[in-house]
Amino acid sequence: MKQSQLFTRTKKESPADEVSLNAELLIRAGFINKEMAGVYSYLPLGLRVLKKIESIIREEMDNIGGTEMRTSVIQNKEVWEKSNRWDDEVVDNWFKTKLKNGTEVGLSFTNEEAYSNILKHYINSYKDLPIYPYDFKNIFRNEARSKSGILRGREFYWKALYSFSKDEKEHNEFYEKAKEAYKNIFKRAGIGHLTYLTFASGGSFSKFSHEFQTITSAGEDTIYVDENKGIAINKEVYNDEVLESLGVKKDDLVENKAVEVGNIFSLGTKFSAPFDLKYKDENGEEKLVIMGSYGIGLGRLMGTVVEVLSDDKGIIWPESIAPFKVHLLLLGGDENVKNEAGGLYNKLKEKNIEVLFDDRSDISAGEKFADSDLIGIPYRIVISKRSLADGGYEVKKRTESSGKIINIDELISLLETKN
Amino acid sequence: MKQSQLFTRTKKESPADEVSLNAELLIRAGFINKEMAGVYSYLPLGLRVLKKIESIIREEMDNIGGTEMRTSVIQNKEVWEKSNRWDDEVVDNWFKTKLKNGTEVGLSFTNEEAYSNILKHYINSYKDLPIYPYDFKNIFRNEARSKSGILRGREFYWKALYSFSKDEKEHNEFYEKAKEAYKNIFKRAGIGHLTYLTFASGGSFSKFSHEFQTITSAGEDTIYVDENKGIAINKEVYNDEVLESLGVKKDDLVENKAVEVGNIFSLGTKFSAPFDLKYKDENGEEKLVIMGSYGIGLGRLMGTVVEVLSDDKGIIWPESIAPFKVHLLLLGGDENVKNEAGGLYNKLKEKNIEVLFDDRSDISAGEKFADSDLIGIPYRIVISKRSLADGGYEVKKRTESSGKIINIDELISLLETKN
Repeated sequence: MKQSQLFTRTKKESPADEVSLNAELLIRAGFINKEMAGVYSYLPLGLRVLKKIESIIREEMDNIGGTEMRTSVIQNKEVWEKSNRWDDEVVDNWFKTKLKNGTEVGLSFTNEEAYSNILKHYINSYKDLPIYPYDFKNIFRNEARSKSGILRGREFYWKALYSFSKDEKEHNEFYEKAKEAYKNIFKRAGIGHLTYLTFASGGSFSKFSHEFQTITSAGEDTIYVDENKGIAINKEVYNDEVLESLGVKKDDLVENKAVEVGNIFSLGTKFSAPFDLKYKDENGEEKLVIMGSYGIGLGRLMGTVVEVLSDDKGIIWPESIAPFKVHLLLLGGDENVKNEAGGLYNKLKEKNIEVLFDDRSDISAGEKFADSDLIGIPYRIVISKRSLADGGYEVKKRTESSGKIINIDELISLLETKN
Repeated sequence: MKQSQLFTRTKKESPADEVSLNAELLIRAGFINKEMAGVYSYLPLGLRVLKKIESIIREEMDNIGGTEMRTSVIQNKEVWEKSNRWDDEVVDNWFKTKLKNGTEVGLSFTNEEAYSNILKHYINSYKDLPIYPYDFKNIFRNEARSKSGILRGREFYWKALYSFSKDEKEHNEFYEKAKEAYKNIFKRAGIGHLTYLTFASGGSFSKFSHEFQTITSAGEDTIYVDENKGIAINKEVYNDEVLESLGVKKDDLVENKAVEVGNIFSLGTKFSAPFDLKYKDENGEEKLVIMGSYGIGLGRLMGTVVEVLSDDKGIIWPESIAPFKVHLLLLGGDENVKNEAGGLYNKLKEKNIEVLFDDRSDISAGEKFADSDLIGIPYRIVISKRSLADGGYEVKKRTESSGKIINIDELISLLETKN
């Protein structure tokens, strides 16, 4: 894409009321627009990142047998009364509204009820199980405060998968697969090295749930990390009994602030019971389905990457979710240089290497460098009279402090290498 | 995909309160689930169709210079007060809700305000124009009645593009391109032959807007079609003066019921004025941006296809938006037949030919045929002991009344042909 055609521009300042690092950088770099606290629109660059995260998650979910669908945002009161989660005394972050005829409806804040209600139509026999449906959709949570940028939105894009299994054994097998899929997701999104499988409270159906917590000072949670074992314990369940049951020693733990980038949860029959979600087993006996839930907020994941991987110049995107792989900077107005840059741009596009081409003519070299650092695309390529005189193009990774001149063959070979 | 892994099943009946043909067929065939009147979830088959429609629209929008982004659903009261569209007396189909602190917010029912408000940050100079941003998102409209299935939802997935141009000339050039893109979309989605560019009321900034109306008895609009000219006139602007200005004769017109599957609209300065959306021209003079809007409801398009292309046995999907290209039916329990079917399934997948494989063992041949007709996949391939004895596979298009036996080479060659 040519930058002259990208309508967003970088800004020196973010809105005065924006206190989070992730939103500040993302707004200044032109990835998102703040509509109000906790509500953001995704501009072209931001949507590109969000879609790459979505693709990674989709691949991992399909890989463990997931089937994608899409539940509605508007939710039926009667459905939620079955599980006793309609009442605002029970769930305090509903957004509710009314149909013209006065009927109250809610906006999805999670999906257990919607899925249980739909699957009720389709589960009869043991032959119908297991099932692993999931969706990507906008979720709405009426947070009292919302000061963490896209880490905690009132409206946010998320993935939720629910597992419907015949028994604990089948459930546990899938649960372990989901754990691995989640590890893959965070690894592929570039934050695997800072993300820990964390034991958290499990509700009435299992001793623990599992959170994936990424260490960052922007996090709202406190976790105790055992580096050697590669696991952590959420403060909410941190006590001697739990430490013992996990075989963890107090002295091996380090306290950290962290943000929950995903969670997986054994639900047992918590929802299948009120929805009467039963199947007939091989002997014709009726049994309740065993459920699990597996969620990831895509905006939160994106915001976490920004929090943990940025530097004082701007964002540093991992290649896997960067809006483009290459930021091509044309410096100066020399016709020959322009032609070289245009030619390289076309060549990269031909090779399906995603490139943002800063072809703007009214911007200084210094401004182009600053913009490029702020936007955070992994590879910066500079074409100028000097680079051509020196034998080619100056290439620099966003994480490197200085570049080097290479020729076209070296450049293509570098960019075509899979990481 | 193996049908044994698809959790949906066809049903004999749709909900008693469902009166529209499109929703009845889509529910019975397992494409959608009714949550309440005007609110539907998309099951795996339905989401596949929706995504194919989305891809077609995205290609056509990118082709005319569109840039994708994603605006929020939750909307700020102050933004809508600028254009005087917050008041329920002015716009009667808002869904509104409240933040914890009592602040009223609305759910997007359209996008002019959100785009004008965002673009205000980025438009300064004539060099910044033209811009053609668009998004796909869920839109919410508090319809008093909602009895048309997915033709008129209270919640629906739609695409909206807005054009921001320097002057009328630049606007008109794009408007004509958008018209062609829209024609392509409906043609590619399989309803081009029933869809007419229709003159409708234009508001204060242009004499006409243009609707794309598809002829169907399920439609709520009345249009007058001139077959020879390939255009139509909406009843709302049908009078002698309009006929004359369009050079159309009363005698050439045929009255039809139709559904509006898309519209394009010249907005002039209706929104740029209240949002003070100005740019400096080459002489440093400030001028208001000229806007246009271009919308398509994806669910409505999907529902229209079902309305106009189904028969008494079920849906007939055009290949371009069908959930799968091929429905492979395995009949009987013979091991050799099973192996042949499994082999063909793998072969088709290898060749990236999308196939739904009815591998279910507890369903009769008659039920498989009925399911296949109801679901409406373009090519049905039957493998049975008899077909193999006759020399291969029985192939039948959904639109044909009887099939024919062909061998594997003929089959692959048939399915690899681009339509």
